[in-house]
Amino acid sequence: MKKTLPTSLPYNQPLTVLSPATIANLSCGFDVLGLALSGVGDTLTVSLTTNPGIEISKIEGADLPRETDKNVAGVALKALLEAIPDYTGGVKLQISKGIAPGSGIGSSAASSAGAVWAVNRLLGELFTPAELTQFAMEGERLASGAAHADNVAPALFGGITLVRSSNPLDVVAIPCPDALYAYVLHPEIELKTSDSRKVLKTRISLQDGIRQWGNVGGLVAGFFLEDYGLISRSLEDVIIEPVRSLLIPGFSEMKEAALKSGALGFGISGSGPSVFALCQGADNCQRAGAAISEAFEGIGLSFNTYQGPVNSQGVQIVSNE
Amino acid sequence: MKKTLPTSLPYNQPLTVLSPATIANLSCGFDVLGLALSGVGDTLTVSLTTNPGIEISKIEGADLPRETDKNVAGVALKALLEAIPDYTGGVKLQISKGIAPGSGIGSSAASSAGAVWAVNRLLGELFTPAELTQFAMEGERLASGAAHADNVAPALFGGITLVRSSNPLDVVAIPCPDALYAYVLHPEIELKTSDSRKVLKTRISLQDGIRQWGNVGGLVAGFFLEDYGLISRSLEDVIIEPVRSLLIPGFSEMKEAALKSGALGFGISGSGPSVFALCQGADNCQRAGAAISEAFEGIGLSFNTYQGPVNSQGVQIVSNE
Repeated sequence: MKKTLPTSLPYNQPLTVLSPATIANLSCGFDVLGLALSGVGDTLTVSLTTNPGIEISKIEGADLPRETDKNVAGVALKALLEAIPDYTGGVKLQISKGIAPGSGIGSSAASSAGAVWAVNRLLGELFTPAELTQFAMEGERLASGAAHADNVAPALFGGITLVRSSNPLDVVAIPCPDALYAYVLHPEIELKTSDSRKVLKTRISLQDGIRQWGNVGGLVAGFFLEDYGLISRSLEDVIIEPVRSLLIPGFSEMKEAALKSGALGFGISGSGPSVFALCQGADNCQRAGAAISEAFEGIGLSFNTYQGPVNSQGVQIVSNE
Repeated sequence: MKKTLPTSLPYNQPLTVLSPATIANLSCGFDVLGLALSGVGDTLTVSLTTNPGIEISKIEGADLPRETDKNVAGVALKALLEAIPDYTGGVKLQISKGIAPGSGIGSSAASSAGAVWAVNRLLGELFTPAELTQFAMEGERLASGAAHADNVAPALFGGITLVRSSNPLDVVAIPCPDALYAYVLHPEIELKTSDSRKVLKTRISLQDGIRQWGNVGGLVAGFFLEDYGLISRSLEDVIIEPVRSLLIPGFSEMKEAALKSGALGFGISGSGPSVFALCQGADNCQRAGAAISEAFEGIGLSFNTYQGPVNSQGVQIVSNE
């Protein structure tokens, strides 16, 4: 559908947003369920320029390419601008990475989602959420070779999202229970996405499939019903975790510690190496987090942790001056 | 947990119940999602007797064994009575089959579920719904060799049920949108369960698995949200239907007719040969049903049809005198 630009545009007025880190591959919901984290994300400052083109003027916090075609946010913005051929101006972008690339909590998705969300805001909300998701997915295509929505959707919309289908795109917002907290531990090791993919089996048993979709149904129902017991019982991944967890040092010790200290569930965030626990309430999250980090400390590798309630908002404005 | 019997029991006071037919293997929800039908079911009359033992005094409407150990309701009742060793009496049972055995709409489950539900009522609701499900599942074990809950759960509870796990049993009641109607067409052919099983593949592709659990998540969310569009998009089975539908004459013609006339979705009920359509509202159900039966009439085989809103009640009392 052709988009009509607003008659006046706020050129050279910077807008700064915080775009959250996200957990994709939420346990049984491999490739379909994700959620947004609070307290960790990328900060992006965008402005519309009268000169055409996309200029990434600065990237802080990570060594990433500034060339538009090699940068996930650049590629996402390019897709957005191509959808408005009438727009004769350009975009200037600064990125401050709060999320380490390759950590498994949606680093590329946060930059892509934040960039398109912010520019859309400056353009007077020209695009629908579904369209923004599609643009941001182009960043994911650059990052991983596949246009996945399972990180960009929760980054854009906040809360918990179900990507029922990627093609055609069908994203469903799932209500998030108020007391749902997430804890993430990011071991500072490099886990190549290619290795993380290589261990996946291309065929699975029908029995495991049935167990997995029973759990996906249970998890979605648990979120709607705010039934933490059901959520906990459903946070089980019988297909991906058994093979991928072998690539993450200390996984089983951390999982045991998490569940012993009352976490609802524990699993791999994205394709790792980050791991996550979901918890009922801040206190439990604190307790489970301490137990998980203690279990990991024994290994002697450095790590970062994040914790907080599920981020219900998604990308948010930090400053518009 | 030990059960304490009421001090006085209503011996020789017959209770008659209607136990509904059910659709199991609801599209993408193979082995996990089911729903209860209105307007078709088995009628069971039970009474407590002072003499011990289970007596099936009459079976109408189908040629089924009256011996306790060979009858699904008998086996289910036996499991129930074994859980109350203090009970010195017995049970007398009459069954009037409204559901043709082997039709694929939960014939055995209706008899098992109705029998245990009615006896539990006479015993002063001694057992929990989960316990009744377990007893009725013994009938399913006799009927099919496996103690499935996907027909007995919706028969007992009504509405839509998710069997997240069979072992340990974990059944979740899913809210049913008010205007959800079901149409069932039962072709009068014999489809052996063993054949229906034989065509299933024991291994599936991970890609199909992901698509299936995305759809299960979407379907469950659609039921909670009363989002008929989402329900419709999610009613897709990429794993079982492509192989099993080949055993059902006219399947693709009926499916095309159903979807053309506005049904939300169309699929195989249980392991067939019955097929079902889900629809939004009575009018649409009427229209889709007419189109489906017209498509099947061309084949020249006899058939029965049922239609109505999803049965929200499950087993219900017809008469207690």
